[in-house]
Amino acid sequence: MLKNAIYAQSGGVTSVINASAYGVISTCRAMCDKIGILYAAENGILGVLHENLIDTTKESDMDIEALRSTPGGAFGSCRYKLKSLEKNKKEYERLIEVFSAYDIEYFFYNGGNDSADTCLKVSQVAQELGYPIKAIHIPKTIDNDLVITDNCPGFGSVAKYIATSICEAGFDLASMHATSTKVFILEVMGRNAGWIAASGGLASFDNSLPPHMILFPEITFDEKKFLAKVDDTVEKYGYCVIAASEGLKNQSGGLLSDSGTSDAFGHAQLGGVASFLATLVNDRLNLKCHYAIADYLQRSARHISSKTDVEQAIALGVAGVKLALDGHNAIMPYIKRISQKPYVWAIDCAKLEDIANHEKFMPRNFIDAEGFYITQECREYLEPLIQGEDYPRFVNGIPSYVRLKNIKVTKKLTPFMQNV
Amino acid sequence: MLKNAIYAQSGGVTSVINASAYGVISTCRAMCDKIGILYAAENGILGVLHENLIDTTKESDMDIEALRSTPGGAFGSCRYKLKSLEKNKKEYERLIEVFSAYDIEYFFYNGGNDSADTCLKVSQVAQELGYPIKAIHIPKTIDNDLVITDNCPGFGSVAKYIATSICEAGFDLASMHATSTKVFILEVMGRNAGWIAASGGLASFDNSLPPHMILFPEITFDEKKFLAKVDDTVEKYGYCVIAASEGLKNQSGGLLSDSGTSDAFGHAQLGGVASFLATLVNDRLNLKCHYAIADYLQRSARHISSKTDVEQAIALGVAGVKLALDGHNAIMPYIKRISQKPYVWAIDCAKLEDIANHEKFMPRNFIDAEGFYITQECREYLEPLIQGEDYPRFVNGIPSYVRLKNIKVTKKLTPFMQNV
Repeated sequence: MLKNAIYAQSGGVTSVINASAYGVISTCRAMCDKIGILYAAENGILGVLHENLIDTTKESDMDIEALRSTPGGAFGSCRYKLKSLEKNKKEYERLIEVFSAYDIEYFFYNGGNDSADTCLKVSQVAQELGYPIKAIHIPKTIDNDLVITDNCPGFGSVAKYIATSICEAGFDLASMHATSTKVFILEVMGRNAGWIAASGGLASFDNSLPPHMILFPEITFDEKKFLAKVDDTVEKYGYCVIAASEGLKNQSGGLLSDSGTSDAFGHAQLGGVASFLATLVNDRLNLKCHYAIADYLQRSARHISSKTDVEQAIALGVAGVKLALDGHNAIMPYIKRISQKPYVWAIDCAKLEDIANHEKFMPRNFIDAEGFYITQECREYLEPLIQGEDYPRFVNGIPSYVRLKNIKVTKKLTPFMQNV
Repeated sequence: MLKNAIYAQSGGVTSVINASAYGVISTCRAMCDKIGILYAAENGILGVLHENLIDTTKESDMDIEALRSTPGGAFGSCRYKLKSLEKNKKEYERLIEVFSAYDIEYFFYNGGNDSADTCLKVSQVAQELGYPIKAIHIPKTIDNDLVITDNCPGFGSVAKYIATSICEAGFDLASMHATSTKVFILEVMGRNAGWIAASGGLASFDNSLPPHMILFPEITFDEKKFLAKVDDTVEKYGYCVIAASEGLKNQSGGLLSDSGTSDAFGHAQLGGVASFLATLVNDRLNLKCHYAIADYLQRSARHISSKTDVEQAIALGVAGVKLALDGHNAIMPYIKRISQKPYVWAIDCAKLEDIANHEKFMPRNFIDAEGFYITQECREYLEPLIQGEDYPRFVNGIPSYVRLKNIKVTKKLTPFMQNV
């Protein structure tokens, strides 16, 4: 009797997480002699705990193929972190209860940093509680902050979106600044790591063209230096285009834009950096300033995904299934950069304990001495990740994305009472 | 001796205003037996007043062809309104001085509402001051608020960008709302007319899918009704995606987001509607809310321009030159909708006095009874405008846009002293 599998999506979604789902599902279908039913848990690990399982075999091959170019998370994602085995053993016992009821041997968790931690914890039911799970983490995060891997699926597409948007807005400013807006700020995501902000630098070859400035969360915000640089840039070029990370920190380490609330992981809710900076520019320099906030548009913009990113997302999904069938547990397939020019990559795998709860920031040598731009090393690292276009099919003027049937299996177990 | 021409760009730029420039320039080149040198004025009418004239004959055919798919205004645009002939005769005398010095008979002004007024005023130097100018206005405005014409070049591409972005963000929300963001707001441009907000409705077939709500400047904002509708939508679908116009008005007719400053035309500076609404949703409904502000990204996003829009922009540029050569003055070529299904259009022409200083708002029957969504009539009007893709060439991962040489002619005249 073949063993079954569960696939689930976790954390903030990306424009290519479903490409990884496509990789997982199509590989499971191709290996139907080795693996039984593939279930998808609704809303990540919560779907396992609450036995909300979707039977992926009910979806047509065509719809699964369409996941390749559909943004968002097709099975629902979640922001939910498992406590440790000591603190909440009930959750782990419930996982085993569900795994047993559905004869699950393989667990594929598709997420970022926090999700790697969840996946690592799930993997522990193998050693600690004796249930023979193979838990594989499939990386995904626009933040690009996972260690070991060359980059994280989802990031390359955001980078392409941001570089393109900054380039395009730059053409707008170039033509308007004589009598109108002099400064434009694009607020981008990136809580602690400046990878997304840095990708704005790919809009041109140097900072004589937009973006003239990049503000990284790794560089403490210095109001005086910032204003001087904006002023100088407007003096020199007539206008100034800025890519600013939402995670900018002030001298005391606090967020410039802290709104005082926090999410399920205890992260501060962000927003407002652009408005904060625009007010500074208006008030102190008396320069007309506009700003855009890309917010979710940047991570869902499948219409301008990087082809390289899509290919890597699929390859990691495929590799995850193969690693599980080879008997691995508590690991993550990752992208290894074999060569820079030409960009050659391969899939390798790493232990989850070396990944979970680590964060990869921009190395200091990726940011120039002044702290407002990327270096050549950074450019060489980033450039390959945005190469190639992979347009979705358009129908009636907009992209044609798939909504799966998501048919849930009839529950067999008593409901899980989280806090009893 | 052939007479010369001036082309200039005015007002907020679009992703296809350069496609009209391509239409004008390529037609002038093709008709070199009838028209002499085509100059481009730098920064609109200001370039004429200050004799900042670019010799377009110095640009290669390849670069002119590349304008077809380059956003922004290649020759610089301006926000500058001529006063009336009575109030500032000096400006008109200066126009004639420059026109005479360069033997200009044809003047092509590419802009929106305010620019149509400027073009109309320029045309008056023919009748009122006896200078034989042929002033032709070539329409362009993302606001889509010019009367008579079926639509305005620039709008269709913004509509495609907004519909696509709302659709994509909708997939994000659909997968995240279970444990995270419940409400998402996309703030879009549109000072008085809700055309851009309305185009968000093209993201789906009805409001059971994103966008669930559209907020139009034509419908007075009612906080109570708004909050009730958001609450109801989240209750019904689990989340709520909203397209909100920057120009929302409160009960007393003031802008929800008035920041108290104004631009050169006396228009209030906008921004902040999304943040205002998000605060309401957070505070009153206690629902996690995110927002994006598209700002200049929407009007410069050439990477997702509508093919229909590009074609119409070019056709209007071509028609402008032909109308001038046919001896017309004070007119504007416009798009006439011959048939709805299939969408068939042609170019006709209208008197500028019937266009300038009029504004086309959304008719009430384009907005549903409740005031939060578009009607079928509106959908049928909008849909043809976003049809077709016209991708720019990508090089090294980003769109390849052209920057012209913009070689200015040596000035012959004494500087123009505006306020002497």
